[in-house]
Amino acid sequence: MREWYFKLAFFKRRIYRHAFNLHMNAKKILESADVDAVVIYNGSNEDLNFYYFTRLLYGGIFEGSLAVISEEGVKVITSILEEQSAKKGSNEVLIYRTGEEREKLLREAVGSANRIGLNYASLSMSDFNRLKKIMGEREYVDVSEKIMEMRMIKDEEELKNMREAAKIASEVADIMPDFMKEGIREYELAARLGYEMFRRGAEDFAFTTIMAFGENAAEPHYLSGARKLKRGDFVLMDFGARYHHYNSDITRTFVFGRASEEQKEMYYTVLEAQRIGIEMLRAGVNGRDVDMKVKEYINSTKYKDRMIHSTGHGLGLAVHDHIGLTSLKDLILKENMVVTVEPGVYIPGFGGVRIEDDVRILKDGVEVLTSAKKNELIEV
Amino acid sequence: MREWYFKLAFFKRRIYRHAFNLHMNAKKILESADVDAVVIYNGSNEDLNFYYFTRLLYGGIFEGSLAVISEEGVKVITSILEEQSAKKGSNEVLIYRTGEEREKLLREAVGSANRIGLNYASLSMSDFNRLKKIMGEREYVDVSEKIMEMRMIKDEEELKNMREAAKIASEVADIMPDFMKEGIREYELAARLGYEMFRRGAEDFAFTTIMAFGENAAEPHYLSGARKLKRGDFVLMDFGARYHHYNSDITRTFVFGRASEEQKEMYYTVLEAQRIGIEMLRAGVNGRDVDMKVKEYINSTKYKDRMIHSTGHGLGLAVHDHIGLTSLKDLILKENMVVTVEPGVYIPGFGGVRIEDDVRILKDGVEVLTSAKKNELIEV
Repeated sequence: MREWYFKLAFFKRRIYRHAFNLHMNAKKILESADVDAVVIYNGSNEDLNFYYFTRLLYGGIFEGSLAVISEEGVKVITSILEEQSAKKGSNEVLIYRTGEEREKLLREAVGSANRIGLNYASLSMSDFNRLKKIMGEREYVDVSEKIMEMRMIKDEEELKNMREAAKIASEVADIMPDFMKEGIREYELAARLGYEMFRRGAEDFAFTTIMAFGENAAEPHYLSGARKLKRGDFVLMDFGARYHHYNSDITRTFVFGRASEEQKEMYYTVLEAQRIGIEMLRAGVNGRDVDMKVKEYINSTKYKDRMIHSTGHGLGLAVHDHIGLTSLKDLILKENMVVTVEPGVYIPGFGGVRIEDDVRILKDGVEVLTSAKKNELIEV
Repeated sequence: MREWYFKLAFFKRRIYRHAFNLHMNAKKILESADVDAVVIYNGSNEDLNFYYFTRLLYGGIFEGSLAVISEEGVKVITSILEEQSAKKGSNEVLIYRTGEEREKLLREAVGSANRIGLNYASLSMSDFNRLKKIMGEREYVDVSEKIMEMRMIKDEEELKNMREAAKIASEVADIMPDFMKEGIREYELAARLGYEMFRRGAEDFAFTTIMAFGENAAEPHYLSGARKLKRGDFVLMDFGARYHHYNSDITRTFVFGRASEEQKEMYYTVLEAQRIGIEMLRAGVNGRDVDMKVKEYINSTKYKDRMIHSTGHGLGLAVHDHIGLTSLKDLILKENMVVTVEPGVYIPGFGGVRIEDDVRILKDGVEVLTSAKKNELIEV
């Protein structure tokens, strides 16, 4: 949305490309799921697939809006309040003023389609019953996995937004040491981090920032609290920016003051584990093997069994977009998947180190989207 | 979470009170929905009812966690990563390490209960199928409306958190004029607003901040963009803080520089409309009548038909917690409901004014939770 005002020429070009992508995506999901139409309802639960198919990424809230995907393309059914936002895309836009009008538009948009695909992964039971009542007796099919298969492979527009989200987070990670001072509280430093992301154009947090000092860094799911920063503390920050609905997710760990030998050993162990993981990544590799290899390395050091989570997850419209690098499940990596690589070690009562980057899978390696410094443990 | 470190004595007292509340809530939902147990699954969709019944408001993420409510009280089934956070509450905590363990714990927790209540309003179709597979043939019942009826009436702990959320937002609304300067962009001012909320203890935005300058203030669903502030602009900000999972929602409209006569007339028309609305509020009044009365006033001025949304909505764990003040639906107001009162008028191409406060319904009137200045149009 931000760029909207200045880049009209670019925008026109973009519309054209959108139209192309959308027809491809629309065609693809209808074929792969073998349905006559797909109905995405941004209802009582937000459905990220609404943005995926409509590419309405540049403004608008779209609560209660629907996307109907059929041979005719993508139709957006939305309220009068969203008319301007909806028309920024390349979809057919149908405007309602009342609930009855919305129902009528939906029935018309699905027409005589019999097999209707729905996204069971986020559609609530209430909304399913509502849709069934409006559309009547048809065959309803779960297409959530088929959509996810498509979403796992990012196209150029998605990658462009993810690169920007990663750039914002990386810049902020690099300047955060400037704001660390004795006595600052975790939530104050987290507030600063948010400010620095938003003024660089982040539209939202990708997720609630984790800002953990000292012993709190040992809890992977800690958020932030009133703990004050003191000399010798670890500072672990795990955060991300959302840009045009796409997310980044980065972790950096610093030491405030001089690092102890133990802190250094933890840091360089994790850094090496991450290097091993990233080096393995390319199309055709199984994510499970990457997680196993990373843990095998950690377990060969004094930090045996101290890595208590998986190596990484898929990233995109959702922060946990899809299964990534985990020994719990097979995932054969493909070109243009984006996954996080985030080994960590944790010592309860002492602290923890995690280093996380976002990488795009290529045929023969990776493109690392995040670029914040990490090769030396930074002592602030 | 923030207060956790300093208020242990208070916390102990709180645990005791929790236990009392929880048993009340647990008892109430089992009786009113006539079920043997209620299962809340914080699965593919976040279910705010998880926090409502467990009162785990002070830290933790609880992805994939379950709450089982039965005659025995509330049981929380959560992963080893959340063990510490889960034990901060007064529920029975059951820890799993694997998916199989989670399934087993769920089966044990529901025991021989036959009629199982589920929250259809957020439970996804996929998760419903998953739960059915784990728990087997039983009678499943939608209890979403029964829970919502309970949630509409806030208890002391909820009000305490909402007051704090409202206080943070009000303080920030009052200081925002200090940061308005010629040429600042909407998203930059929104970034500052976020920073000021977070450093005062907000744990999240209640929703994406609306920061609209000049003509952008005419779009009620506008978010923020790169528009620069210039003399004579409206500055409309609609935002809220989340504190211990409870939300505030406030709107203030300023003029940067000297206000024109038209701007003043819009402002004082909206202010009077809000006064009329708030004055009507008390237990027993129908929200529909309030919306109609507010619009009747607006329609008696030169801004006829310029108020294109309802007067207000319920507020709580969700920002749009429940139906509020809208001519679309009846709602007999009850003591300890919290609703927003937010009339506005919008002139496309020129701008808009909205003034919004959060109010708690009392027997004979209201408690206004938000306190930012509004009685004079502020010219910055």
